[in-house]
Amino acid sequence: MTDSIQNTIDYLQETRDRMMEDYKELLRFPSISADPAHAADVHACAAWIVGQLEALGFDKCEAIATEGYPVVYGEWLKAGADKPTVLVYAHYDVQPVDPLPLWRSEPFEGLIRDGKMFARGASDNKAGVWGNLKLFEALLRTNGELPVNVKIMFEGEEESGSPSIEAFVKANKERLKADVLLNCDGDFAPDDPRLYYGGRGMVTAEVRVSGPKADIHSGLYGGLVQNPLHVAGRIIGSFHDDEGSIQVPGYYDMVREASEVEKSRIEAGFQADAMKEGAGVNQFWGDSIAPAAERATVYPTCDIIGMWGGYQGAGSKTIIPAEAGFKITMRLAPDQDPPAIAKALKDYVESFTTDTVEVECNVGEMAWYFELVTEGPWLEAVQSAIEATVGKRAQLVRTGGSIPILGVFNRLIGLPITAFAYGEGEGIHSPNEYLKLDSFYTSLEAAVRLYHNLAAVEV
Amino acid sequence: MTDSIQNTIDYLQETRDRMMEDYKELLRFPSISADPAHAADVHACAAWIVGQLEALGFDKCEAIATEGYPVVYGEWLKAGADKPTVLVYAHYDVQPVDPLPLWRSEPFEGLIRDGKMFARGASDNKAGVWGNLKLFEALLRTNGELPVNVKIMFEGEEESGSPSIEAFVKANKERLKADVLLNCDGDFAPDDPRLYYGGRGMVTAEVRVSGPKADIHSGLYGGLVQNPLHVAGRIIGSFHDDEGSIQVPGYYDMVREASEVEKSRIEAGFQADAMKEGAGVNQFWGDSIAPAAERATVYPTCDIIGMWGGYQGAGSKTIIPAEAGFKITMRLAPDQDPPAIAKALKDYVESFTTDTVEVECNVGEMAWYFELVTEGPWLEAVQSAIEATVGKRAQLVRTGGSIPILGVFNRLIGLPITAFAYGEGEGIHSPNEYLKLDSFYTSLEAAVRLYHNLAAVEV
Repeated sequence: MTDSIQNTIDYLQETRDRMMEDYKELLRFPSISADPAHAADVHACAAWIVGQLEALGFDKCEAIATEGYPVVYGEWLKAGADKPTVLVYAHYDVQPVDPLPLWRSEPFEGLIRDGKMFARGASDNKAGVWGNLKLFEALLRTNGELPVNVKIMFEGEEESGSPSIEAFVKANKERLKADVLLNCDGDFAPDDPRLYYGGRGMVTAEVRVSGPKADIHSGLYGGLVQNPLHVAGRIIGSFHDDEGSIQVPGYYDMVREASEVEKSRIEAGFQADAMKEGAGVNQFWGDSIAPAAERATVYPTCDIIGMWGGYQGAGSKTIIPAEAGFKITMRLAPDQDPPAIAKALKDYVESFTTDTVEVECNVGEMAWYFELVTEGPWLEAVQSAIEATVGKRAQLVRTGGSIPILGVFNRLIGLPITAFAYGEGEGIHSPNEYLKLDSFYTSLEAAVRLYHNLAAVEV
Repeated sequence: MTDSIQNTIDYLQETRDRMMEDYKELLRFPSISADPAHAADVHACAAWIVGQLEALGFDKCEAIATEGYPVVYGEWLKAGADKPTVLVYAHYDVQPVDPLPLWRSEPFEGLIRDGKMFARGASDNKAGVWGNLKLFEALLRTNGELPVNVKIMFEGEEESGSPSIEAFVKANKERLKADVLLNCDGDFAPDDPRLYYGGRGMVTAEVRVSGPKADIHSGLYGGLVQNPLHVAGRIIGSFHDDEGSIQVPGYYDMVREASEVEKSRIEAGFQADAMKEGAGVNQFWGDSIAPAAERATVYPTCDIIGMWGGYQGAGSKTIIPAEAGFKITMRLAPDQDPPAIAKALKDYVESFTTDTVEVECNVGEMAWYFELVTEGPWLEAVQSAIEATVGKRAQLVRTGGSIPILGVFNRLIGLPITAFAYGEGEGIHSPNEYLKLDSFYTSLEAAVRLYHNLAAVEV
């Protein structure tokens, strides 16, 4: 076994340069899922990956149609029924490239410089797609087989909110059946390895507050007609009490309190000073509610991300504006049910309607919180592979952010999930995105060990 | 005397057509005070009017320089010390013409059609300038003299907020000395004559609420960092209680309660149904504070005229925004002191500053409430002239709006003020502004009687 691992690692070392040259082919597809002008590019990218899987000898390779962009599927199930089946997730779509003038190289022409590959998607998340393809190639070329059964699921809509993924997963439960899901969307930093094992859910909403039929004169009507901006302010100002506690009735009812183990883990993964510096604040807010580390991860939030109404130009304009609006993002804690929270939010906000000012709350996106395994053989397979490769185990970290696809798997498939990402990048969602080649090679080395570890897990 | 009046009226009738053709000369100046590109036009317009006054035989005619545009001055003081001196106010600057495509004729080429003169400023307020010039011409041509002493003061900055007028009035108190001020900025409707005898003061302010150093991720920082939009909402929502009463400490302290006579007058001039229709609301707001007519005129207000912050586009963006802002307009009641109110507002708003969110309130414009005479010989001179001309007296009406120049005269000069306007128009501050020629002629006829009435007031 050790020889077999070393052979595969040697293969990866020997093919490094070609691997990176070939990566440019994948990077060349402008697979921007948010921009309809690139629809054909997204489809072409999916088809190209299908071809790669076929060339590797995967079965049932297909760009499976969804309501939106296809999911690339392929399976290699020849390891035998006594071996685990691993469902591998990554996404092949990328963020838009604006603002283009800030790019120092062509976003879709991969450029290697200073040990980095510059391109849109080089890190997020074509590195996940490419890492898997190269890993399986190396395993198959050196051993003639994979240590486990593998099912590939590469999504094409992650950067536009995964609108079709829930329906896809529901319709393909049998096909997606596996013993473990490996999430390859993320970062692998050899110096400071981290595994995100949980995140918050989300509900977004947009509120419209309507008053007079048009902007009316503030001199003639001031004191007579209720101003919708005042009502908008009242709603916005009412969401929190002085301590920062959210006032939407029932908001905390479903929140699951973290266990003591979980609390210590959260505390250990929290970097208070770095967070303060990142935000440019000297202190946090809401300290009476819970420790900062928990508020940032396992407590729910309610933030107004934008608001508007009336005259925003220079000087002043003598009006009572006809309407105002604002956008809400709530991050949900474990066990909070997005549809129930959305209903509570809508009921609360619309209760501010008065005789002459109407308040309408439209719910937008919803996502479930997610939780990956925090112990057990699947995680151990990942941790020992990382340790054998970089000399330390990954820190388990909770994020306050949301990964909708993982919430969907948690809820609809219910299989254990762990994370393993390929390479480390910067400039994700920004100009001059890049992937560090060294960390990418290191993650491939760890992946070889990981797959052999997975093969040893009893199922 | 009656013969003398009739002679003058006859002269005005006989010269009607020429009067309107000549009016086009004045209308031709694009004296847009708000647009620096028209600075030369504003100055040229002032110089042209000075020439007209000189041609009439007025003395000390001058375009008096101010920090901004000149005030056109001229005096005719040959009526004798036993006759009143009347200070006449109007303004020769006009509003901008945007949106130009909506004009059906050239804004600065007067066009007579259907008994109306179409042009920017035809009504607001070159009709005030032109009415006075033609009145004095008629009086001087037919009688060789004016019935009273006259001082002319035509402003060139009214449409851009009269920024220089307070300093001008302070510096020219002696020159502006008179027994009565006649405000000729307004409307004269022969069917429904109205005299605005009072209006509210004003304080405007802009508030900036700053939090994190940049927009930060709502997933990572939500629950940790106070959101400046929440604080902005709190301030906006706090200005009024449920009844609509303003919560800024001390806000009502200086408010003078209206007398019973005043209350009846306000009630009589208030058109509740028309106001509801104008705003498109079924009911007013704040009924427990005072009757609607009083709230719209002699009670102060506090309105947010605009607000903004964060992301206003489609969909959502995962941010806690770095800052928010909003604009306030307060309309002030009689006896409320704008600087004192501005200070109370600033103190109140800035008291919402927290450890991590800074609130800054910058005061903008300030204007004093104004009050014209509501009884006595000056008003009677106006009323009996109107009655003799159109068969009824004008209704005395208070406006909830502000006329800064009148507040300046009230406070700095302290002379009695009454109003008399020339003609009736529509489209003021809008495309296709026009002056109704019939109402303009009628107002000139009333003005002849007015000046003879004024001559009879004992001083």
